[in-house]
Amino acid sequence: MIQITKANGKAEIELLAALRQRSGEVDKQVSATVSQIIEEVKDAGDCAVRKYTEKFDGSCPEKFEIDREEINDALTNADQAFVDAMLSAIENISAFHNRQKQQSFLDTQENGVIMGQRIRGLARVGIYVPGGTAAYPSSVLMNAIPAKIAGVKEIIMVTPPMKNGAANPDILVAAALAGVDRIFLMGGAQAAAAMAFGTESVPKVDKIVGPGNIFVATAKKLLYGVVDIDMIAGPSEILVMADSTANPKYLAADMMSQAEHDALASSILLTTDENIARETVKEIERQIEGLSRKQIIEKSLANYGAVIVCRDDQEMIDLANELAPEHLEVMTANPMEYIGKLDNAGSVFLGQYSPEPLGDYYAGPNHVLPTGGTARFFSPLGVDSFIKKSSFIYYTQDALREAHDDIVLIAEKEQLTAHANSIKVRF
Amino acid sequence: MIQITKANGKAEIELLAALRQRSGEVDKQVSATVSQIIEEVKDAGDCAVRKYTEKFDGSCPEKFEIDREEINDALTNADQAFVDAMLSAIENISAFHNRQKQQSFLDTQENGVIMGQRIRGLARVGIYVPGGTAAYPSSVLMNAIPAKIAGVKEIIMVTPPMKNGAANPDILVAAALAGVDRIFLMGGAQAAAAMAFGTESVPKVDKIVGPGNIFVATAKKLLYGVVDIDMIAGPSEILVMADSTANPKYLAADMMSQAEHDALASSILLTTDENIARETVKEIERQIEGLSRKQIIEKSLANYGAVIVCRDDQEMIDLANELAPEHLEVMTANPMEYIGKLDNAGSVFLGQYSPEPLGDYYAGPNHVLPTGGTARFFSPLGVDSFIKKSSFIYYTQDALREAHDDIVLIAEKEQLTAHANSIKVRF
Repeated sequence: MIQITKANGKAEIELLAALRQRSGEVDKQVSATVSQIIEEVKDAGDCAVRKYTEKFDGSCPEKFEIDREEINDALTNADQAFVDAMLSAIENISAFHNRQKQQSFLDTQENGVIMGQRIRGLARVGIYVPGGTAAYPSSVLMNAIPAKIAGVKEIIMVTPPMKNGAANPDILVAAALAGVDRIFLMGGAQAAAAMAFGTESVPKVDKIVGPGNIFVATAKKLLYGVVDIDMIAGPSEILVMADSTANPKYLAADMMSQAEHDALASSILLTTDENIARETVKEIERQIEGLSRKQIIEKSLANYGAVIVCRDDQEMIDLANELAPEHLEVMTANPMEYIGKLDNAGSVFLGQYSPEPLGDYYAGPNHVLPTGGTARFFSPLGVDSFIKKSSFIYYTQDALREAHDDIVLIAEKEQLTAHANSIKVRF
Repeated sequence: MIQITKANGKAEIELLAALRQRSGEVDKQVSATVSQIIEEVKDAGDCAVRKYTEKFDGSCPEKFEIDREEINDALTNADQAFVDAMLSAIENISAFHNRQKQQSFLDTQENGVIMGQRIRGLARVGIYVPGGTAAYPSSVLMNAIPAKIAGVKEIIMVTPPMKNGAANPDILVAAALAGVDRIFLMGGAQAAAAMAFGTESVPKVDKIVGPGNIFVATAKKLLYGVVDIDMIAGPSEILVMADSTANPKYLAADMMSQAEHDALASSILLTTDENIARETVKEIERQIEGLSRKQIIEKSLANYGAVIVCRDDQEMIDLANELAPEHLEVMTANPMEYIGKLDNAGSVFLGQYSPEPLGDYYAGPNHVLPTGGTARFFSPLGVDSFIKKSSFIYYTQDALREAHDDIVLIAEKEQLTAHANSIKVRF
């Protein structure tokens, strides 16, 4: 199922190439279909959403918006232990994201000049929440909470109906607890387009976030610029670094927790200890028997799993920085000392008792993370994802007079005489 | 050349529609050509860059990288007044952007849990600087300085040769003063691709920034994901708000300083005073005669210029927020009071003595700003554009035990049993 290789330069390059290939090109056929849907929703609003909902989902709800009453019912009927678990998660996620808040600033100078930067939340944000088995309440929290903390005035959500025609009640509970303002029962590219342009039912948003299938992801790409979007997430990944002090039981469990997401997911172990490598493979074979998603895990590990034995610590660090994984676990004797060495990773999990699902659900940092090596330049979703900035300048006549010659000189260097004129005309 | 209309709902909607149409679709032919260039540069490196440079620029430099000596020569031979003006601009731009720096944070809890967010500069950034008449030294400063302050380790730059085969010396001066590390004499889509993939001459970067023609802009769009990019800038815009205290001479000059950029640029005046509207139009007709780019200004004002008389202050503010302009000038009796009311604007210029060119070159805030109404959700280029974040989590065994039940419950709700297993296996 999963092979042990020694780091030798070649194996890693092949692995990297295989991983990077997972996030393929946009499918042309999908792109054409989605373009058509977007155009129709732009022109015909709800009517087009209704048409495509009937076409793809088989039927269409009478009314798209879910009543406050139905949301309250979901909350009343929810298992109290689940509500309490969500509330604990919300507390932790809020505490972490509160630390990310940036402040507006204003500088005044002695000559009367005032300058600054104003930061505020976007006016309205739309969260896409998939239906079916990929309906994750934790994803609602991770998208809604940073938006709320950023000061977004209104958070709306779209989610497709379940087979029975109703919304997934766990999703409604998560949305109610996280402070989502309005929920619409619709999915697919038509729902994304509805949020981007606004329809009779759905208000126009400034940014669309949240995961979705290939149609939704393509719609988001095509709508980028009409609205802002979050990253287009690729298949999920974990990289585990382990020395001889690591516990193979934990290593195996954590690799499989990633692999169960999807046959395209990637789980890689780097270790300096060949024995740990062998024991981890044995543990995978042992533990997998008890897991409900055994088949997906097997496929994922066979295609994109790897166990690589490294010569030393530095080789593990170099490989980790090269792979730039979404999730990075460090199970070594001195995990905290790695913080400054790991340059490219979405989220870093340090020590034996910080498994990735802790971060997926609970600890506080966001679980929407850059994938496919993009941690080299992208960052986790956060409060910054939901703000906009404006700069402002106030100059006095004297201050502008002082700057007059320099500005005119630069403007003339750039052959922009009307720029120079706008300074000169004032004196 | 430019007409005065009264705000009545209809005129503004038509104006908005016209403005939004300027940033059209990607041209399919251009897109196909650029795709081909990207593929070849990815596969053949310098050899492909050389081929396309010869094809498009007529000849190709012997060596792409510009020697340190040539850069130093440009600096030695530069007009001292220009160097001094650039140094003053650099001081102001650095002071403003230094205020944007975010700090890493770390939180420790009494139960031993450690969590935080690490912020650092990207490893390597590439700046595209156009050649010809659009070679703007100020643009080098606005792209390089925030990258430097963000802690980017290496800043490289590409710029196409002038007709004589050499680099524009003003650009070299700006690059040397702003701390650009290496400069390569190449342009077009091939230069963007060289930075994205790396070639024998050009090192691979993490992010490409800077303006360019349609080929460069298309290349950046297609390379997004391989590297990060800045916004794709649309045609430039200014919106000026004026009450009866404004000076029509200044209003006219500022509108034309925007209009001279390009026939697609847009300059709009909103005023509560009909007399100011009439006088401004007269001033435009008077001042335009002395400007070298008269023809561009005439075209731009005729197509995308407007003077709109508003009933009151609130109507001006509402229209400004709807238009979400790149540059917004406020020339009213009490300009500072507008800061909190103007929700969507890249940069706001307050008062009679804060004309837009002051911000383009000198005051400190960045001149790379969201265009085409995207100030609703995009922000000016800044230090945040050149950083990456990672979160980190360290839990103790006791802390994880405490969280055990909640995490397992949420994982099982999401039917992710391997996630639950990774917690359970530790106890």
